[in-house]
Amino acid sequence: MYTIRKATAQDWPGIWTIFEAVVKSGETYPYATDTSKDEAKYLWMKPEQHVFVAVDEGEVVGTYYIRDNQPTNGAHVCNAGYMVRKDQRGRGLGRALCEHSLQAARDLGYRAMQYNLVVSTNPAAVHLWQKLGFEIVGTLAEAFLHAQKGYVDAYIMYRLLDSKTS
Amino acid sequence: MYTIRKATAQDWPGIWTIFEAVVKSGETYPYATDTSKDEAKYLWMKPEQHVFVAVDEGEVVGTYYIRDNQPTNGAHVCNAGYMVRKDQRGRGLGRALCEHSLQAARDLGYRAMQYNLVVSTNPAAVHLWQKLGFEIVGTLAEAFLHAQKGYVDAYIMYRLLDSKTS
Repeated sequence: MYTIRKATAQDWPGIWTIFEAVVKSGETYPYATDTSKDEAKYLWMKPEQHVFVAVDEGEVVGTYYIRDNQPTNGAHVCNAGYMVRKDQRGRGLGRALCEHSLQAARDLGYRAMQYNLVVSTNPAAVHLWQKLGFEIVGTLAEAFLHAQKGYVDAYIMYRLLDSKTS
Repeated sequence: MYTIRKATAQDWPGIWTIFEAVVKSGETYPYATDTSKDEAKYLWMKPEQHVFVAVDEGEVVGTYYIRDNQPTNGAHVCNAGYMVRKDQRGRGLGRALCEHSLQAARDLGYRAMQYNLVVSTNPAAVHLWQKLGFEIVGTLAEAFLHAQKGYVDAYIMYRLLDSKTS
Protein backbone atom coordinates (compact mmCIF):
# COMPACT_ATOMS: atom_id res chain seq x y z
CA MET A 1 0.00 0.00 0.00
CA TYR A 2 1.23 3.48 -0.76
CA THR A 3 1.60 6.48 1.49
CA ILE A 4 1.13 10.06 0.29
CA ARG A 5 3.43 12.63 1.87
CA LYS A 6 5.31 15.86 1.10
CA ALA A 7 8.13 15.38 -1.39
CA THR A 8 11.75 15.89 -0.40
CA ALA A 9 14.81 16.50 -2.57
CA GLN A 10 15.58 12.76 -2.30
CA ASP A 11 12.36 11.95 -4.15
CA TRP A 12 13.41 13.79 -7.29
CA PRO A 13 14.94 10.81 -9.19
CA GLY A 14 11.72 8.83 -8.70
CA ILE A 15 9.56 11.79 -9.70
CA TRP A 16 11.71 12.35 -12.80
CA THR A 17 11.12 8.77 -13.99
CA ILE A 18 7.37 9.42 -13.92
CA PHE A 19 7.60 12.95 -15.32
CA GLU A 20 9.73 11.82 -18.24
CA ALA A 21 7.31 9.05 -19.26
CA VAL A 22 4.19 11.19 -18.88
CA VAL A 23 5.58 14.17 -20.76
CA LYS A 24 7.17 12.07 -23.49
CA SER A 25 3.70 10.96 -24.61
CA GLY A 26 2.75 14.58 -25.44
CA GLU A 27 -0.85 13.72 -24.61
CA THR A 28 -1.68 15.47 -21.36
CA TYR A 29 0.84 18.10 -20.23
CA PRO A 30 1.87 21.25 -22.07
CA TYR A 31 5.57 20.51 -21.64
CA ALA A 32 8.00 19.69 -24.43
CA THR A 33 8.22 15.93 -24.99
CA ASP A 34 12.01 16.21 -24.75
CA THR A 35 12.04 18.27 -21.53
CA SER A 36 15.42 17.71 -19.87
CA LYS A 37 15.82 16.45 -16.33
CA ASP A 38 16.99 19.89 -15.16
CA GLU A 39 14.11 21.71 -16.83
CA ALA A 40 11.70 19.18 -15.37
CA LYS A 41 13.10 19.74 -11.89
CA TYR A 42 12.65 23.47 -12.31
CA LEU A 43 9.06 22.98 -13.50
CA TRP A 44 7.90 20.45 -10.90
CA MET A 45 9.99 21.23 -7.81
CA LYS A 46 10.04 25.02 -7.84
CA PRO A 47 9.81 26.54 -4.38
CA GLU A 48 6.42 28.19 -4.92
CA GLN A 49 4.84 24.76 -5.49
CA HIS A 50 3.84 22.31 -2.78
CA VAL A 51 4.89 18.91 -4.08
CA PHE A 52 3.67 15.56 -2.78
CA VAL A 53 4.53 11.97 -3.62
CA ALA A 54 2.85 8.63 -3.28
CA VAL A 55 5.46 6.10 -2.11
CA ASP A 56 5.10 2.33 -2.15
CA GLU A 57 7.87 0.17 -0.68
CA GLY A 58 10.32 3.05 -0.96
CA GLU A 59 9.50 3.86 -4.59
CA VAL A 60 7.76 6.94 -5.90
CA VAL A 61 4.63 5.74 -7.74
CA GLY A 62 2.85 9.08 -8.15
CA THR A 63 3.24 12.81 -7.57
CA TYR A 64 1.29 16.04 -7.58
CA TYR A 65 1.85 19.75 -7.03
CA ILE A 66 -0.35 22.54 -5.70
CA ARG A 67 0.35 26.22 -6.33
CA ASP A 68 -1.40 29.57 -6.49
CA ASN A 69 -3.19 29.79 -9.81
CA GLN A 70 -2.95 33.60 -9.93
CA PRO A 71 -1.11 36.26 -7.92
CA THR A 72 -2.47 38.19 -4.95
CA ASN A 73 -6.15 38.88 -5.65
CA GLY A 74 -6.55 35.49 -7.28
CA ALA A 75 -4.21 33.57 -4.98
CA HIS A 76 -7.02 31.96 -2.98
CA VAL A 77 -7.59 29.66 -5.98
CA CYS A 78 -5.00 26.93 -6.42
CA ASN A 79 -3.92 24.91 -9.41
CA ALA A 80 -2.76 21.30 -9.18
CA GLY A 81 -1.25 18.69 -11.48
CA TYR A 82 -0.93 14.93 -11.04
CA MET A 83 1.25 12.19 -12.49
CA VAL A 84 1.02 8.43 -11.89
CA ARG A 85 3.63 5.85 -12.85
CA LYS A 86 2.37 3.95 -15.84
CA ASP A 87 2.63 0.48 -14.27
CA GLN A 88 0.54 1.72 -11.31
CA ARG A 89 -2.58 2.70 -13.25
CA GLY A 90 -5.87 1.12 -12.23
CA ARG A 91 -5.00 1.12 -8.52
CA GLY A 92 -7.04 4.21 -7.71
CA LEU A 93 -3.88 6.23 -7.28
CA GLY A 94 -5.09 9.17 -9.42
CA ARG A 95 -8.20 9.40 -7.25
CA ALA A 96 -6.16 9.13 -4.05
CA LEU A 97 -3.77 11.87 -5.18
CA CYS A 98 -6.66 14.16 -6.10
CA GLU A 99 -8.47 13.56 -2.81
CA HIS A 100 -5.24 14.19 -0.93
CA SER A 101 -4.69 17.40 -2.87
CA LEU A 102 -8.18 18.67 -2.05
CA GLN A 103 -7.51 18.26 1.65
CA ALA A 104 -4.00 19.69 1.34
CA ALA A 105 -5.48 22.69 -0.47
CA ARG A 106 -7.99 23.25 2.32
CA ASP A 107 -5.22 22.95 4.91
CA LEU A 108 -3.21 25.56 2.97
CA GLY A 109 -6.20 27.91 3.11
CA TYR A 110 -7.26 27.79 -0.54
CA ARG A 111 -10.93 28.36 -1.35
CA ALA A 112 -11.09 26.72 -4.78
CA MET A 113 -9.08 24.52 -7.15
CA GLN A 114 -8.74 25.11 -10.88
CA TYR A 115 -7.33 22.96 -13.68
CA ASN A 116 -6.38 25.21 -16.57
CA LEU A 117 -5.87 22.79 -19.43
CA VAL A 118 -7.53 19.39 -19.14
CA VAL A 119 -7.07 17.76 -22.51
CA SER A 120 -10.44 16.72 -23.96
CA THR A 121 -8.99 13.52 -25.45
CA ASN A 122 -8.31 12.20 -21.94
CA PRO A 123 -11.85 11.24 -20.84
CA ALA A 124 -10.68 9.00 -17.98
CA ALA A 125 -9.15 12.03 -16.29
CA VAL A 126 -12.15 14.25 -17.05
CA HIS A 127 -14.57 11.72 -15.54
CA LEU A 128 -12.41 11.22 -12.48
CA TRP A 129 -12.25 14.95 -11.79
CA GLN A 130 -16.01 15.18 -12.25
CA LYS A 131 -16.55 12.39 -9.73
CA LEU A 132 -14.37 14.35 -7.33
CA GLY A 133 -16.53 17.46 -7.53
CA PHE A 134 -15.02 19.37 -10.44
CA GLU A 135 -17.13 20.88 -13.19
CA ILE A 136 -16.12 21.68 -16.73
CA VAL A 137 -16.63 25.43 -16.50
CA GLY A 138 -15.23 26.20 -19.93
CA THR A 139 -14.01 24.73 -23.19
CA LEU A 140 -10.98 26.21 -24.96
CA ALA A 141 -11.23 25.45 -28.66
CA GLU A 142 -8.08 23.79 -30.03
CA ALA A 143 -6.02 24.98 -27.07
CA PHE A 144 -3.82 21.86 -26.77
CA LEU A 145 -1.46 20.55 -29.43
CA HIS A 146 -1.70 16.78 -28.99
CA ALA A 147 1.30 14.74 -30.16
CA GLN A 148 -0.91 12.39 -32.23
CA LYS A 149 -4.18 14.22 -32.76
CA GLY A 150 -3.05 17.76 -33.46
CA TYR A 151 -5.02 20.71 -32.08
CA VAL A 152 -7.67 19.46 -29.67
CA ASP A 153 -10.01 21.20 -27.23
CA ALA A 154 -9.08 21.59 -23.60
CA TYR A 155 -11.32 22.11 -20.57
CA ILE A 156 -11.07 24.37 -17.61
CA MET A 157 -12.28 22.45 -14.57
CA TYR A 158 -13.04 24.09 -11.24
CA ARG A 159 -14.45 23.43 -7.83
CA LEU A 160 -14.92 25.33 -4.62
CA LEU A 161 -13.43 23.69 -1.54
CA ASP A 162 -16.02 24.65 1.05
CA SER A 163 -17.59 21.21 1.13
CA LYS A 164 -15.71 18.69 3.24
CA THR A 165 -16.91 15.82 1.06
CA SER A 166 -14.46 15.57 -1.78
CA MET B 1 -3.92 61.20 -31.84
CA TYR B 2 -2.03 58.30 -30.33
CA THR B 3 0.30 55.78 -31.95
CA ILE B 4 0.61 52.19 -30.80
CA ARG B 5 4.10 50.68 -31.00
CA LYS B 6 6.42 48.26 -29.24
CA ALA B 7 7.51 49.48 -25.82
CA THR B 8 11.14 50.33 -25.09
CA ALA B 9 12.97 50.62 -21.76
CA GLN B 10 12.44 54.39 -21.97
CA ASP B 11 8.67 53.91 -21.79
CA TRP B 12 8.80 52.28 -18.35
CA PRO B 13 8.24 55.45 -16.24
CA GLY B 14 5.10 56.24 -18.22
CA ILE B 15 3.88 52.64 -18.03
CA TRP B 16 4.51 52.61 -14.28
CA THR B 17 2.28 55.67 -13.75
CA ILE B 18 -0.58 53.78 -15.39
CA PHE B 19 0.20 50.44 -13.75
CA GLU B 20 0.31 52.00 -10.29
CA ALA B 21 -3.08 53.68 -10.66
CA VAL B 22 -4.80 50.63 -12.17
CA VAL B 23 -3.42 48.17 -9.63
CA LYS B 24 -4.02 50.46 -6.66
CA SER B 25 -7.76 50.22 -7.26
CA GLY B 26 -7.68 46.45 -6.63
CA GLU B 27 -10.61 46.10 -8.98
CA THR B 28 -9.30 44.44 -12.12
CA TYR B 29 -5.80 42.93 -11.84
CA PRO B 30 -4.68 40.18 -9.47
CA TYR B 31 -1.64 42.17 -8.33
CA ALA B 32 -1.12 43.54 -4.82
CA THR B 33 -2.46 47.09 -4.54
CA ASP B 34 0.90 48.15 -3.10
CA THR B 35 3.02 46.48 -5.80
CA SER B 36 6.37 48.31 -5.86
CA LYS B 37 7.82 49.92 -8.97
CA ASP B 38 10.48 47.19 -9.21
CA GLU B 39 7.97 44.37 -8.84
CA ALA B 40 5.72 46.01 -11.41
CA LYS B 41 8.60 46.26 -13.87
CA TYR B 42 9.32 42.59 -13.38
CA LEU B 43 5.65 41.71 -13.92
CA TRP B 44 4.95 43.88 -16.96
CA MET B 45 8.30 44.13 -18.75
CA LYS B 46 9.64 40.59 -18.40
CA PRO B 47 11.46 39.36 -21.50
CA GLU B 48 8.94 36.61 -22.34
CA GLN B 49 6.23 39.25 -22.80
CA HIS B 50 5.74 41.41 -25.87
CA VAL B 51 4.88 44.86 -24.52
CA PHE B 52 3.28 47.66 -26.49
CA VAL B 53 2.40 51.25 -25.65
CA ALA B 54 0.00 53.84 -26.95
CA VAL B 55 1.81 57.18 -27.07
CA ASP B 56 0.19 60.58 -27.49
CA GLU B 57 2.42 63.66 -27.80
CA GLY B 58 5.33 61.81 -26.25
CA GLU B 59 3.33 60.48 -23.28
CA VAL B 60 2.37 56.88 -22.61
CA VAL B 61 -1.43 56.78 -22.42
CA GLY B 62 -1.96 53.01 -22.54
CA THR B 63 -0.11 49.73 -22.60
CA TYR B 64 -0.62 46.03 -23.18
CA TYR B 65 1.34 42.79 -23.11
CA ILE B 66 1.05 39.53 -25.04
CA ARG B 67 2.63 36.29 -23.88
CA ASP B 68 2.24 32.52 -24.22
CA ASN B 69 -0.62 31.42 -21.99
CA GLN B 70 0.84 27.94 -21.47
CA PRO B 71 4.16 26.24 -22.26
CA THR B 72 4.97 24.20 -25.34
CA ASN B 73 1.85 22.24 -26.24
CA GLY B 74 -0.36 25.16 -25.25
CA ALA B 75 1.93 27.95 -26.45
CA HIS B 76 -0.10 28.63 -29.59
CA VAL B 77 -2.66 30.36 -27.35
CA CYS B 78 -1.65 33.78 -26.06
CA ASN B 79 -2.72 35.78 -23.06
CA ALA B 80 -2.90 39.59 -23.07
CA GLY B 81 -3.54 42.36 -20.56
CA TYR B 82 -4.36 46.03 -21.12
CA MET B 83 -4.12 49.22 -19.11
CA VAL B 84 -5.33 52.69 -20.06
CA ARG B 85 -4.45 55.93 -18.28
CA LYS B 86 -7.44 57.01 -16.28
CA ASP B 87 -7.75 60.46 -17.87
CA GLN B 88 -7.79 58.83 -21.32
CA ARG B 89 -10.89 56.70 -20.87
CA GLY B 90 -13.73 57.14 -23.31
CA ARG B 91 -11.39 57.74 -26.27
CA GLY B 92 -11.68 54.23 -27.62
CA LEU B 93 -8.17 53.45 -26.47
CA GLY B 94 -9.10 50.12 -24.87
CA ARG B 95 -10.66 48.99 -28.12
CA ALA B 96 -7.68 50.22 -30.14
CA LEU B 97 -5.22 48.38 -27.87
CA CYS B 98 -7.24 45.17 -28.11
CA GLU B 99 -7.54 45.38 -31.91
CA HIS B 100 -3.82 46.07 -32.14
CA SER B 101 -3.09 43.08 -29.90
CA LEU B 102 -5.22 40.76 -32.03
CA GLN B 103 -3.20 41.69 -35.09
CA ALA B 104 0.09 41.51 -33.18
CA ALA B 105 -0.91 38.05 -31.95
CA ARG B 106 -1.61 36.89 -35.51
CA ASP B 107 1.73 38.34 -36.63
CA LEU B 108 3.45 36.43 -33.82
CA GLY B 109 1.83 33.23 -35.05
CA TYR B 110 -0.67 32.67 -32.25
CA ARG B 111 -3.89 30.79 -33.05
CA ALA B 112 -6.07 32.00 -30.17
CA MET B 113 -6.19 34.56 -27.37
CA GLN B 114 -7.32 33.83 -23.84
CA TYR B 115 -8.08 36.10 -20.88
CA ASN B 116 -7.78 34.09 -17.69
CA LEU B 117 -9.43 36.30 -15.10
CA VAL B 118 -11.86 38.93 -16.37
CA VAL B 119 -13.50 40.34 -13.27
CA SER B 120 -17.28 40.04 -13.51
CA THR B 121 -17.81 43.39 -11.82
CA ASN B 122 -16.18 45.16 -14.77
CA PRO B 123 -19.00 44.93 -17.36
CA ALA B 124 -17.54 47.65 -19.60
CA ALA B 125 -14.49 45.47 -20.22
CA VAL B 126 -16.55 42.31 -20.66
CA HIS B 127 -18.78 43.99 -23.26
CA LEU B 128 -15.82 45.44 -25.12
CA TRP B 129 -14.11 42.05 -25.37
CA GLN B 130 -17.38 40.51 -26.56
CA LYS B 131 -17.68 43.16 -29.27
CA LEU B 132 -14.16 42.25 -30.34
CA GLY B 133 -14.98 38.59 -30.83
CA PHE B 134 -14.31 37.08 -27.41
CA GLU B 135 -16.75 34.73 -25.75
CA ILE B 136 -17.18 34.03 -22.06
CA VAL B 137 -16.22 30.36 -22.19
CA GLY B 138 -16.27 29.84 -18.44
CA THR B 139 -17.18 31.38 -15.09
CA LEU B 140 -14.90 30.90 -12.08
CA ALA B 141 -16.97 31.21 -8.92
CA GLU B 142 -15.53 33.74 -6.45
CA ALA B 143 -12.11 33.58 -8.13
CA PHE B 144 -11.22 37.26 -7.70
CA LEU B 145 -10.86 39.09 -4.39
CA HIS B 146 -12.16 42.57 -5.19
CA ALA B 147 -10.87 45.40 -3.02
CA GLN B 148 -14.41 46.69 -2.31
CA LYS B 149 -16.74 43.81 -3.09
CA GLY B 150 -14.89 40.81 -1.68
CA TYR B 151 -14.92 37.50 -3.55
CA VAL B 152 -16.51 37.96 -6.97
CA ASP B 153 -16.80 35.72 -10.01
CA ALA B 154 -14.32 35.98 -12.86
CA TYR B 155 -14.70 34.96 -16.49
CA ILE B 156 -12.42 33.17 -18.87
CA MET B 157 -12.77 34.80 -22.27
CA TYR B 158 -11.41 33.27 -25.44
CA ARG B 159 -11.32 33.69 -29.18
CA LEU B 160 -9.68 32.01 -32.10
CA LEU B 161 -7.66 34.30 -34.36
CA ASP B 162 -8.36 32.70 -37.72
CA SER B 163 -10.81 35.37 -38.75
CA LYS B 164 -9.20 38.55 -40.00
CA THR B 165 -12.11 40.66 -38.80
CA SER B 166 -11.36 41.56 -35.23
